[in-house]
Amino acid sequence: MTVEIVSIGTELLMGQTVDTHAATLGQLFPEFGIVHRHRQTVGDNKGRILDALRLALSRSDWVITIGGLGPTEDDLTRECVAEALDLPLHLHSDVEAALRQRFAQRKAPWTDSQARQALFPRDATLLENPNGTAPGFAVRKGEQGIISLPGPRNEFVPMVEGPLREFLAGLRTGEVFVSRTLRVAGMGESLAEERIRDLLHLANPTVAPYAQPGEVQFRITARAESIEVARALIAPVESEVRSRLGEAVFGADSDTLEQTVLELLRRRGLTLAVAESCTGGGLAYRLTSAPGSSEVFLGGVVSYANEVKVGVLGVEADVLTREGAVSELVARQMAQGVRRLTGADIGVGITGIAGPGGGSPEKPVGLVYVGFSGPLKESVEELRLSGSRETIRLRSISAALDLIRRNVGGAV
Amino acid sequence: MTVEIVSIGTELLMGQTVDTHAATLGQLFPEFGIVHRHRQTVGDNKGRILDALRLALSRSDWVITIGGLGPTEDDLTRECVAEALDLPLHLHSDVEAALRQRFAQRKAPWTDSQARQALFPRDATLLENPNGTAPGFAVRKGEQGIISLPGPRNEFVPMVEGPLREFLAGLRTGEVFVSRTLRVAGMGESLAEERIRDLLHLANPTVAPYAQPGEVQFRITARAESIEVARALIAPVESEVRSRLGEAVFGADSDTLEQTVLELLRRRGLTLAVAESCTGGGLAYRLTSAPGSSEVFLGGVVSYANEVKVGVLGVEADVLTREGAVSELVARQMAQGVRRLTGADIGVGITGIAGPGGGSPEKPVGLVYVGFSGPLKESVEELRLSGSRETIRLRSISAALDLIRRNVGGAV
Repeated sequence: MTVEIVSIGTELLMGQTVDTHAATLGQLFPEFGIVHRHRQTVGDNKGRILDALRLALSRSDWVITIGGLGPTEDDLTRECVAEALDLPLHLHSDVEAALRQRFAQRKAPWTDSQARQALFPRDATLLENPNGTAPGFAVRKGEQGIISLPGPRNEFVPMVEGPLREFLAGLRTGEVFVSRTLRVAGMGESLAEERIRDLLHLANPTVAPYAQPGEVQFRITARAESIEVARALIAPVESEVRSRLGEAVFGADSDTLEQTVLELLRRRGLTLAVAESCTGGGLAYRLTSAPGSSEVFLGGVVSYANEVKVGVLGVEADVLTREGAVSELVARQMAQGVRRLTGADIGVGITGIAGPGGGSPEKPVGLVYVGFSGPLKESVEELRLSGSRETIRLRSISAALDLIRRNVGGAV
Repeated sequence: MTVEIVSIGTELLMGQTVDTHAATLGQLFPEFGIVHRHRQTVGDNKGRILDALRLALSRSDWVITIGGLGPTEDDLTRECVAEALDLPLHLHSDVEAALRQRFAQRKAPWTDSQARQALFPRDATLLENPNGTAPGFAVRKGEQGIISLPGPRNEFVPMVEGPLREFLAGLRTGEVFVSRTLRVAGMGESLAEERIRDLLHLANPTVAPYAQPGEVQFRITARAESIEVARALIAPVESEVRSRLGEAVFGADSDTLEQTVLELLRRRGLTLAVAESCTGGGLAYRLTSAPGSSEVFLGGVVSYANEVKVGVLGVEADVLTREGAVSELVARQMAQGVRRLTGADIGVGITGIAGPGGGSPEKPVGLVYVGFSGPLKESVEELRLSGSRETIRLRSISAALDLIRRNVGGAV
């Protein structure tokens, strides 16, 4: 089965909105054996939306539209879908009643344009929209059909996870694609690829690399007649990648480095505190992005100014003068200091030059030290990173997380 | 002049890459008077790339392709562009020589497939690619043409800012579009829109709202025969929006709330330190995202655990017990504590419930207190936010920045 996405909205063409929804759908399709070969993006214009839908129906089995389902005059998707399939629009009075009730509860004034959201092409299946004013829909015509989803992110994402998944499962035919992503930290892309170069040429499953700041991913994708068979094809390749890359593989699929670290700490009953200079709180922010981190993460100090390094963390003033703020010893003393200050089992300190200014021949932009201080072990890692200020900060954060992971995995 | 984007790459359809490049181009076009009505996305398949190019040439003056210019077999853009325009490919021996030299310098082995990057359609204008192995190109055929840019982000972005801008400036004809974006904080989208509702219906310039967590933007766009005339159309509307929204307008265009705050502090010679609980370092991270913040931002404490609130910040233990960690008084004492600890002129404290768990009927998810402590003034703001954990954290950070901005703008 082939599916084509038609993303609708002038804000997409103007670049005010980045089309992450299309990527979300793209990631979903393989699981349902859906082949996705084309995507079109058009503005809020009736003629061009119609043209896009007709072109899509001429070459794809199903079309998924994103956006244009709201109550305003710019929201043209429902009319265009009905016209492209040559079906009339019917008013669903139960949807209108629910809309009116919702408005009454919020004490928001009802306007007649709101009722447009209760119009659907004849015989459409409504797709529940728990976070929005009106449902999405799917409508068939012969062997083809169109599915229409709303654009706002808080409505779109839950609809994809719930009603869309269910609908696609009902349509599923033929082969399925299953993917498994192995996530790698602390090893550069080229070295990691070097180690598994032969596997990158496999036909089924395929293995494809993706790099992002501080992390490399290898996506193993198998094509088969069932999910079970696809998984059986993936398993030996996954084992092989894991054995060649060793402990650099920190997780799979939606695992994140911070979750992995928090889980390791939790399992070993250890607490953590961090002292940050060039990363400015970003390591703490990432560690607290998942709920429940307070069990093992006590907090930290952002020691941006040298007075804070000395006065709060207890870094020695003459070390700062002698070695400079970006030095192995300062990273070590920051880690020790935050550990002492908070009473955490483990302290981590980061100091470096994120740029764009502030570099010198001896200490160039991208030089970063990460100090680790645990009950049994202390170490400092020197990094030489490249990229923009943002990239260097992101890479420093990932490197610090990875250092914690490797240290906590062994003797602390 | 109309331009259509054709984004090329199977990773875009699979959702492994989000098409931010298309958005970058979309934002650029109005300045050159370019109308952008369609975008197509196709995988690395010769037939489908050719179809997309032919469709684009049938309805748009110029086509810009993104991606598929590398040396591998999957990189099909140059062949397809030549075929779509019915032009032969020529080898540019100077480009090949430069490629060979680059490989020799890096001691990387030369493979014949690399030479493909020196092939260009006949009479193509080469577009310099300072960060990549091979240039992009633009090729005309009669009144139409195709511009091809590489996909990797570090190559694409500088090429857009440099060679592409220059090329488009040379093509410029007719009307130009000029935009001015006013940025608003501390006022909800609906209230802000209410105040300028009549302006949202203007024809030229148009005024369009965009909301994101913690900020509302109004984009004023004028169409005119020259940039000067367009700016003259924008000026009175900008004044009107500013006068109706008052101090809620914190900046324009690429101004950010954190830059505005840092600049205000710098101008008044004041230093800042922050104590964060639910935002976990995110406020400090945002304040340090711009280089040069160390002049006024001393640092902060991430007091995720209550022991850190008491032991490091000096929050009173019985206040924590009596009022709870998420309370007005704790926010105030956090602000006071971090100010005392670091010696900063201004201290800010944030404590709240970011969710998804941890809420109660009296203290629901989204309840956040932001404390401010300056030499002359103390205050605490209570926020009732909604959204995901991430949204609540982002909104809390923006609200804290806005509180600093408003306080530092007046008597501190």
